[in-house]
Amino acid sequence: MAALIEVPRGLTGVVAASTSIGDVDGEAGYFHYRQYNATQLARTCTLEQVWHLVTRGTLPDPTTSAAFREKVARGRVLPEAVGAALPTLVSSGAPPIDVLRAALSLAGTALDARPTIEGTVSEHEELGLRLAAMAPTIVAATARLRAGLAPLAPDASLGHATDYLRMVTGSIPEPEHARAVEQYLILTVDHGFNASTFTARVITSTGADVPAAMAGALGALSGPLHGGAPSRALDALDAIAVVGDPRRWAERELAAGRRLMGFGHAVYRTPDPRSGLLREIARALGGATAESILAAEPVIVDVLRQRHPDRVLEANVELYAGVVMERCGLARDLFTPTFAISRMIGWSAHIAEQIIDGKLIRPSALYVGPAPDRSMLAG
Amino acid sequence: MAALIEVPRGLTGVVAASTSIGDVDGEAGYFHYRQYNATQLARTCTLEQVWHLVTRGTLPDPTTSAAFREKVARGRVLPEAVGAALPTLVSSGAPPIDVLRAALSLAGTALDARPTIEGTVSEHEELGLRLAAMAPTIVAATARLRAGLAPLAPDASLGHATDYLRMVTGSIPEPEHARAVEQYLILTVDHGFNASTFTARVITSTGADVPAAMAGALGALSGPLHGGAPSRALDALDAIAVVGDPRRWAERELAAGRRLMGFGHAVYRTPDPRSGLLREIARALGGATAESILAAEPVIVDVLRQRHPDRVLEANVELYAGVVMERCGLARDLFTPTFAISRMIGWSAHIAEQIIDGKLIRPSALYVGPAPDRSMLAG
Repeated sequence: MAALIEVPRGLTGVVAASTSIGDVDGEAGYFHYRQYNATQLARTCTLEQVWHLVTRGTLPDPTTSAAFREKVARGRVLPEAVGAALPTLVSSGAPPIDVLRAALSLAGTALDARPTIEGTVSEHEELGLRLAAMAPTIVAATARLRAGLAPLAPDASLGHATDYLRMVTGSIPEPEHARAVEQYLILTVDHGFNASTFTARVITSTGADVPAAMAGALGALSGPLHGGAPSRALDALDAIAVVGDPRRWAERELAAGRRLMGFGHAVYRTPDPRSGLLREIARALGGATAESILAAEPVIVDVLRQRHPDRVLEANVELYAGVVMERCGLARDLFTPTFAISRMIGWSAHIAEQIIDGKLIRPSALYVGPAPDRSMLAG
Repeated sequence: MAALIEVPRGLTGVVAASTSIGDVDGEAGYFHYRQYNATQLARTCTLEQVWHLVTRGTLPDPTTSAAFREKVARGRVLPEAVGAALPTLVSSGAPPIDVLRAALSLAGTALDARPTIEGTVSEHEELGLRLAAMAPTIVAATARLRAGLAPLAPDASLGHATDYLRMVTGSIPEPEHARAVEQYLILTVDHGFNASTFTARVITSTGADVPAAMAGALGALSGPLHGGAPSRALDALDAIAVVGDPRRWAERELAAGRRLMGFGHAVYRTPDPRSGLLREIARALGGATAESILAAEPVIVDVLRQRHPDRVLEANVELYAGVVMERCGLARDLFTPTFAISRMIGWSAHIAEQIIDGKLIRPSALYVGPAPDRSMLAG
């Protein structure tokens, strides 16, 4: 038997793949897509420009940019079979993220082109783009069907984020709302190597198709330790309102041994760069919830600093993401699916990169159970 | 930034988890579930007994065995919402394995009990059993709906394998057919650590629910490098029939640089123990396909031995699995879903083990793209 290689639990720090898509510098406090600071991209670019950068490797020139935006817009149109399946999927009572998983699981088959492992990388890239592009249409249709409303068809004249909000709410959003959600989406396209991205690459490495990889990654994203609980920070705010004072609330939570959602990060030794921009956006959008969080944040950070003077426990991406989404018309159960809408762009880039890599990802396990009965060796 | 740990590509040999469920001894040429030789279990036990062993850790006494068999039988009944969704899912034209993925993705929600990450391990075990138990009902309903027939309800008086075949074919199977499929299912419950089992554990490690882990693992299983191509050996047989001679066919395939499906294994330095028992079963069941494979096998092994005298290239599990399934009434597009029916039992055990482990599985990637532009560091 080949020797086993022991590594830290959870494969922490273990190199499972090489990537040119992006990385996180936790010491310097920034993350990048290709060679560009992601927060800067969120300040200056459209989602479609960043989508092109992440999946194709370059920021597009204006002509390419317009063509790519059109391609994404066409991609928002649902295949007929997916649109037909949605009412049944929604009526099962499944959370929107599970409906998205089931719908995308089917979508690949409903499309004309369904590349196999023998397909070219660009065929897989096209399918990845198509699936990621239709996600907002599925999520919005789910939201409307749950509310007893008819789903809306996409409008190819609009940007991706604007059209998503329109399909959810039923009217063209305020420009500052559309831009706020667009910036949130840009900030969450990719973030180093994470459990859902890794899942997409493991599934792809077996030669499974893009919908299989996307469905698996959506499963990983739905876990509360990953992307499945971005409404917790708002839930905490509700609890603060009940207690009446953020300091009392934070001290009580910590005394009870609970973590404070929205604070701290496994990688950053600095404030989370995503929270900086999202705080600005939340402040500009205004509203009672934003004001409460802006007031509570320094109080809670102070409590955390007194309790853990040795650790950096600043606001993370979760703290302001929820207030921004809610302010723009997205209900709490759409937070995780909205996160998925942008992260699927990152996955599609990683899936293509994994296809080029070509190596099956198959680690080992260390058997620690009762010793096998050797007398039973004869098969 | 924490130091990265470089390991072999594809995480080969890297310990990603500890397990008491089973292991493969590639040198000695056997694999085991808990402390029992799996091939021996397939000779002597029912699927439900092995299911209890793999998921609960012990071979059940007769009373426990009867109760467990009843529990599995009750679990075959589809939740109403899943049954209602199936016709739409099937009409999308998706392959049965994708329908299974979508249906199970929904099933968790349709059940009353849906444990969250805070749930007890036994709650997750119950859900894992329930999902694995309903898989044959979904696969059989898919096969019948595709053929324009009404799905059949499960019959709690029958064993799992027998009832599966009955729901597919519409009549109680011959006992030797039911037992053949049961033995195939026992042989494929688990097999060391593999890409789909690993996928289930990665997804579970994020706190995602059992359906999310199962859906992701099904995606990995659908890949042709893993479980997604068990009909290839029969396809090869069709090609041999066209060429008219297995030696000529094998030499031509090898000369063209193609691998011969059904031969060779990454881990075994011996014949694959699964193929030994499956060959016996195929011989006992008889039929033209079995006779052709039995005749072709030694010829092809001889060609391979001459070409690669240094390697062990014997029949693997794929070679006889297809002929056994086809002989028992399962069409080729049901091979992968049938494999899934047994492997889901193994996944449910690994999911429960991962919940107890509790550690997020999140490796790193090595960034190899263009250096980030440090002048853009300001967020």
